[in-house]
Amino acid sequence: MAAEVICVGTELLLGDILNSNARYLAIELAALGVPHFYQTVVGDNLDRIHSAIEIACARSSILIFTGGLGPTPDDLTTEAIASYFNTPLVEHPEVIANIAQKFAQIGREMTPSNRKQALQPAGAQLLPNPSGTAPGMIWQPRAGLTILTFPGVPRELYRMWRDTAVLFLKTQGYGQDSIYSRSLHFFGVSESALAEKVNYLFDSTNPTVAPYAGNGQVRLRIAAKASSEAAAQLLIEPIATEIKQIAGNNYFGSDDDTLASVVGDLLRARGQTLSVAESCTGGGLGRLLTEIPGSSDYFMGGVISYANRVKIDLLGVDPAALETEGAVSEIVARQMAAGVKAKLATDWAISITGVAGPGGGTDAKPVGLVYIGIAAPDGSVEGIKYLLGSQRDRDLIRLMSAAQSLDLLRRRLQS
Amino acid sequence: MAAEVICVGTELLLGDILNSNARYLAIELAALGVPHFYQTVVGDNLDRIHSAIEIACARSSILIFTGGLGPTPDDLTTEAIASYFNTPLVEHPEVIANIAQKFAQIGREMTPSNRKQALQPAGAQLLPNPSGTAPGMIWQPRAGLTILTFPGVPRELYRMWRDTAVLFLKTQGYGQDSIYSRSLHFFGVSESALAEKVNYLFDSTNPTVAPYAGNGQVRLRIAAKASSEAAAQLLIEPIATEIKQIAGNNYFGSDDDTLASVVGDLLRARGQTLSVAESCTGGGLGRLLTEIPGSSDYFMGGVISYANRVKIDLLGVDPAALETEGAVSEIVARQMAAGVKAKLATDWAISITGVAGPGGGTDAKPVGLVYIGIAAPDGSVEGIKYLLGSQRDRDLIRLMSAAQSLDLLRRRLQS
Repeated sequence: MAAEVICVGTELLLGDILNSNARYLAIELAALGVPHFYQTVVGDNLDRIHSAIEIACARSSILIFTGGLGPTPDDLTTEAIASYFNTPLVEHPEVIANIAQKFAQIGREMTPSNRKQALQPAGAQLLPNPSGTAPGMIWQPRAGLTILTFPGVPRELYRMWRDTAVLFLKTQGYGQDSIYSRSLHFFGVSESALAEKVNYLFDSTNPTVAPYAGNGQVRLRIAAKASSEAAAQLLIEPIATEIKQIAGNNYFGSDDDTLASVVGDLLRARGQTLSVAESCTGGGLGRLLTEIPGSSDYFMGGVISYANRVKIDLLGVDPAALETEGAVSEIVARQMAAGVKAKLATDWAISITGVAGPGGGTDAKPVGLVYIGIAAPDGSVEGIKYLLGSQRDRDLIRLMSAAQSLDLLRRRLQS
Repeated sequence: MAAEVICVGTELLLGDILNSNARYLAIELAALGVPHFYQTVVGDNLDRIHSAIEIACARSSILIFTGGLGPTPDDLTTEAIASYFNTPLVEHPEVIANIAQKFAQIGREMTPSNRKQALQPAGAQLLPNPSGTAPGMIWQPRAGLTILTFPGVPRELYRMWRDTAVLFLKTQGYGQDSIYSRSLHFFGVSESALAEKVNYLFDSTNPTVAPYAGNGQVRLRIAAKASSEAAAQLLIEPIATEIKQIAGNNYFGSDDDTLASVVGDLLRARGQTLSVAESCTGGGLGRLLTEIPGSSDYFMGGVISYANRVKIDLLGVDPAALETEGAVSEIVARQMAAGVKAKLATDWAISITGVAGPGGGTDAKPVGLVYIGIAAPDGSVEGIKYLLGSQRDRDLIRLMSAAQSLDLLRRRLQS
């Protein structure tokens, strides 16, 4: 009894819009424990919608359509479904009355084209649309096959899904066993290296464990199918504990945790404060830190020292060091961190100076070379060199520099 | 000769991520004039990938896969394609060498599991991946059918698509009659207000004009179908000129222009410099400015004055003003701008102070209240109040504050 999501709309095939409906339905189906193996996108074309229905019927027993319920001639979903199953369309007068009333409310007159939205295949049950003009339907055109239709407007889809489709699926026996998941986040280890250590878990079927990677971070998602969230957590917890033991301090948080939120929690627990001095990231580290509501508890601010003059004047970097070692050097990173810590009178300070590219790289200082400084409450100041790779682009080098600096501080705070 | 996009990944079926790759490829295929009628999403499952290939082969002649090229056991795309066409996988030693080199560059060792990424079906041509470890391929398993594979990581896909796939499709005869487009960017006008002024253009078929909106900015996309870019530009140019005249100075740039790049070009042309003082944006404005390569020509840096103490100590904000008016006030915005301009000795300065939420709002100072300060070369300092809306979330309020401040400076520089 698998479900298949079929999104109808030429605008999706032209790339005019992101297919956020497919993701919404995917999350909802997973939460209800409805198996879901395929998604299809098809344009506003009768023959091709027929073909998509034929393929979907052969492999899925619940077809969930979004889009193509509008009043204009290119909206063909209902008509295509009815004609594929050789079923006549019937007009629902209560829908026409409802549409007319909605138009009257905003002082407009219903257009003749809206009458089309009152047509549904004979035998289909209407799914009311409280926030729009196009109702959907639930229809069993034959035994073992259920079709649901929804408008393409995300807000209308969400409400209709919650109000009616969820109840329907529960009466069909779904939602007894739901899927709950926990994501574990890692930094400082590659996806392949982490996967090799935990790959014996990848064959597990309940919970399942799957790795994801992006922007230098790795995530393992543990998903369990159970009759309640508590029961699912009982399945997830031992696996999570095991993975954390294997990953050691490369593990930094779960679910909505970010490096910035974890660093913030650690600082708050210690009652300590932080400032930053940023060169190549230009404010990106401060932005990550202040994405967290309440970050003013521990984050005081910083200096964006993009020009060398600012490094000298505001941070007290030694002009001779800039001259002999260059702005991207260990000594300058250390002086930036020490300088901003003193200037803002914080317990900790982070500095970042690097070659973000695409220009400005040399053999000695290639694009991707970054120095991170950490000034600690005990007065010690470290400067650490990273090679983030000259193949990476400017945005990614800047993002990874900021993430790397947060991870470094996290490790210092956790040690 | 239609193309079909097949996105492989259980994470898409679980709703963990939005399918932005499908949209990217849809836009690119439309631009090249490649017909594209179906998109399929399928999980990391050998049998189901085989089934998706079988269906796609019967209706499309170019299959474009994304995802499933990683090093872990659940990455099955290459293996599934090879086994469907009964073709052995062969190892490419140059790929192993390349992966090993990339690991060495960042001081790590390649893991045995990465060797899998060097396997391609015999006869397939490698698509190099300059920014990651997984190469893709172009392969004709039989006459009239071409398969392309790309990693699921968006930035790797984008670069490989631009560097190699576009050229390949052009040699196959695509992109003769291509769609060329120009995007015009607007700030300070709503989508509906702009649309009402130019809606008589929306019925045009070549070029077409379509509006998009997001994050407080509006975009009109003018797309023309023609045999050459020059011919398309002849169709686009008069429409663009007409729209610019209608929009006045709400128009700020085209295509890859951003508010930060436009402000940068204006400053560079005048030989003037800029600094920033950021409170609620926490570095986000500096980050936007330094996203532009070469921004060190005009952007000197700034102060992230998240705590009031930093506003006083580093920017010279009057403690009495903070006490009586509060940190989110016109006078503090003006003093922040004047302070950073003096401290960094720049021609211009921007400051931002506001209530980003979700907490911290009051009746007098609701979430979304933002003051922007602009200090000009003539010594004048303005402070301007914006209500960005308490319904908006923290991220959007911060992003729109930074964008609004850049737009304000743009208007000053253009007047």
